[in-house]
Amino acid sequence: MTKHLIEYAQASAPVRVVYDDIMHTRQVDQVNNFWKCLAAHPSTLERTWQSLKQIMGPGALDPLTKELIYVAVSVTNNCSYCIASHIAAARRAGMTDEMFGELQAVIGMANETNRLAVGYRVPLDDGFRD
Amino acid sequence: MTKHLIEYAQASAPVRVVYDDIMHTRQVDQVNNFWKCLAAHPSTLERTWQSLKQIMGPGALDPLTKELIYVAVSVTNNCSYCIASHIAAARRAGMTDEMFGELQAVIGMANETNRLAVGYRVPLDDGFRD
Amino acid sequence: MTKHLIEYAQASAPVRVVYDDIMHTRQVDQVNNFWKCLAAHPSTLERTWQSLKQIMGPGALDPLTKELIYVAVSVTNNCSYCIASHIAAARRAGMTDEMFGELQAVIGMANETNRLAVGYRVPLDDGFRD
Amino acid sequence: MTKHLIEYAQASAPVRVVYDDIMHTRQVDQVNNFWKCLAAHPSTLERTWQSLKQIMGPGALDPLTKELIYVAVSVTNNCSYCIASHIAAARRAGMTDEMFGELQAVIGMANETNRLAVGYRVPLDDGFRD
Amino acid sequence: MTKHLIEYAQASAPVRVVYDDIMHTRQVDQVNNFWKCLAAHPSTLERTWQSLKQIMGPGALDPLTKELIYVAVSVTNNCSYCIASHIAAARRAGMTDEMFGELQAVIGMANETNRLAVGYRVPLDDGFRD
Amino acid sequence: MTKHLIEYAQASAPVRVVYDDIMHTRQVDQVNNFWKCLAAHPSTLERTWQSLKQIMGPGALDPLTKELIYVAVSVTNNCSYCIASHIAAARRAGMTDEMFGELQAVIGMANETNRLAVGYRVPLDDGFRD
Repeated sequence: MTKHLIEYAQASAPVRVVYDDIMHTRQVDQVNNFWKCLAAHPSTLERTWQSLKQIMGPGALDPLTKELIYVAVSVTNNCSYCIASHIAAARRAGMTDEMFGELQAVIGMANETNRLAVGYRVPLDDGFRD
Repeated sequence: MTKHLIEYAQASAPVRVVYDDIMHTRQVDQVNNFWKCLAAHPSTLERTWQSLKQIMGPGALDPLTKELIYVAVSVTNNCSYCIASHIAAARRAGMTDEMFGELQAVIGMANETNRLAVGYRVPLDDGFRD
Repeated sequence: MTKHLIEYAQASAPVRVVYDDIMHTRQVDQVNNFWKCLAAHPSTLERTWQSLKQIMGPGALDPLTKELIYVAVSVTNNCSYCIASHIAAARRAGMTDEMFGELQAVIGMANETNRLAVGYRVPLDDGFRD
Repeated sequence: MTKHLIEYAQASAPVRVVYDDIMHTRQVDQVNNFWKCLAAHPSTLERTWQSLKQIMGPGALDPLTKELIYVAVSVTNNCSYCIASHIAAARRAGMTDEMFGELQAVIGMANETNRLAVGYRVPLDDGFRD
Repeated sequence: MTKHLIEYAQASAPVRVVYDDIMHTRQVDQVNNFWKCLAAHPSTLERTWQSLKQIMGPGALDPLTKELIYVAVSVTNNCSYCIASHIAAARRAGMTDEMFGELQAVIGMANETNRLAVGYRVPLDDGFRD
Repeated sequence: MTKHLIEYAQASAPVRVVYDDIMHTRQVDQVNNFWKCLAAHPSTLERTWQSLKQIMGPGALDPLTKELIYVAVSVTNNCSYCIASHIAAARRAGMTDEMFGELQAVIGMANETNRLAVGYRVPLDDGFRD
């Protein structure tokens, strides 16, 4: 399966620029398989990395909170690669076992009540209208 | 549509016990339509409220973080009632406009990269295995 | 919005054949808007009706069970038209209020545990392998 | 991967209480991996089991019907663990090969018509309004 | 796992008729595992193949465009078998690496903006109403 | 609901730059509500527009094909705003009624077979491996 992974040694110059920025920004010496796959279409690699770097950095929400949100979306979409990589990122950002347990409980509960609201066709409360 | 909403005045004693606990816990004088719909099946009402109360209270994750996660799941599932009610809850828990903007950006980005990881069939990195 | 609905009076002969079969099979004197929309592409109308008629008739599973399954899928997919029309069909097939309440509880629970299984990355038990 | 599975021998007393109740209720001598994973967060284990036991028992809907609904949700959500475990549970509850075939046909058809209703933006029939 | 696959040699006459038509239509000498699984329920096999043959043939949209749409749905639903088989079909129909890269980029972008539209609760423009 | 829409007259200079580019690129004299909502978080507005402009322009896939793919994703995600706006865009790019009918048929079929592949747990054919 690794035939689709573009390693640094074989990468074109524009791809290397992105790989270098990923490694420098994250202070790691390897890029994940995700980026090695996207490198097959350099404009997607470059755009995706620039967007991710802009969005996931510190702001009004701290990096750990952003990673928890990322995991919640990835679990709801059932993306196994994304779940694995963003649980790893959340742990690096400080997620403890207890936080992980509460995260899963909230994700499960939200998915349950989402379906109950839809199945019971709950009408919007006046106070919730924009 | 309001015919399915069970108001306090018409509620049975077990339903009123739940309504009272919701109003007391949240310090409000009304329960949302979600609960008035679930009241049609009292065991679901009682179980769902007990679970929600246990899960959404303070713990290793603070209440605002839990509400942001709830919004992320609800947007990904496209549940309009849940989006409206949990954006309202997140605002009460302290979500600012800037936080809301960043939340949406992370949700959007996660949904995009989830599909890229799936579409490119990215193999799991060794470091991400359990 | 009704401009997209093809009424019997304006329908072509092949569309009328399908409409007639729907009304005869279901013992009603009107077809639902779903069919009036599909009629814009007669081969889709014809194929969809033939499939639905074949699948939803009595077999190893009774019609009520099939309608409950249909509602479960429609709630999980958040299709409001499908939820409304198949709740109506389930009621005609004998679904009581208590059955409806249990149906929603199972749908909600399944959606919750689906996410827990995915989020915890539960490994398959040996006994569950094919 | 089994490092995340909490076996009975290593489980805390509160976790063993739940394991014992699962084994006693289901008349089995092992709990599934699902429960061994949830045991990492005992309150989620306890709450999830209590909810599942309450919901999936006999009621207005029989246990087999509930398992078929569970499979329909799990297939629609594409949860491979849940599909495997609830197909096994449905078989234990009496699902035959012919029932399984009809179940899959209904799930497939419902997913197809859900998208057709959404894609054609079918307006709700007056008779389907609450 | 192959125990569920019904090979030609063991197939009943009605199943062989479908297998023969698939192989003849596609000019191949084997049917995919998808069909070998569906063969467990011959009416589903027959109906699904007839529908697929009718829908995916040339029409107002060419076969390559139809396969790209099929991949887009399969990625969004996270169906790994369908992604693999329809990427293979799209390549046979003429999809180049550059087309594949653009396809993934559009799928990713659509999934991102879908969530942004939902999360921001964008009201429908007057010009978009039916 | 329009209180969340940032009109040109009230927009900040950086937002106007994006609005101007959208109107110029698309040769229209108004931006859609989607952009007026995103303008609440200017970096999301700017990034999303730049990505969309890059991705949806002509390339190895023509603009109409890209819009059809966009509709397929939006229908599968059940995003009503996105369905409406991208059906409109597809029509402007040349989608005929017959193309629309075939598009819906493929989307429906893909959603059906996706679930059949998942529900039958079809093992990957050797020829489909990467």
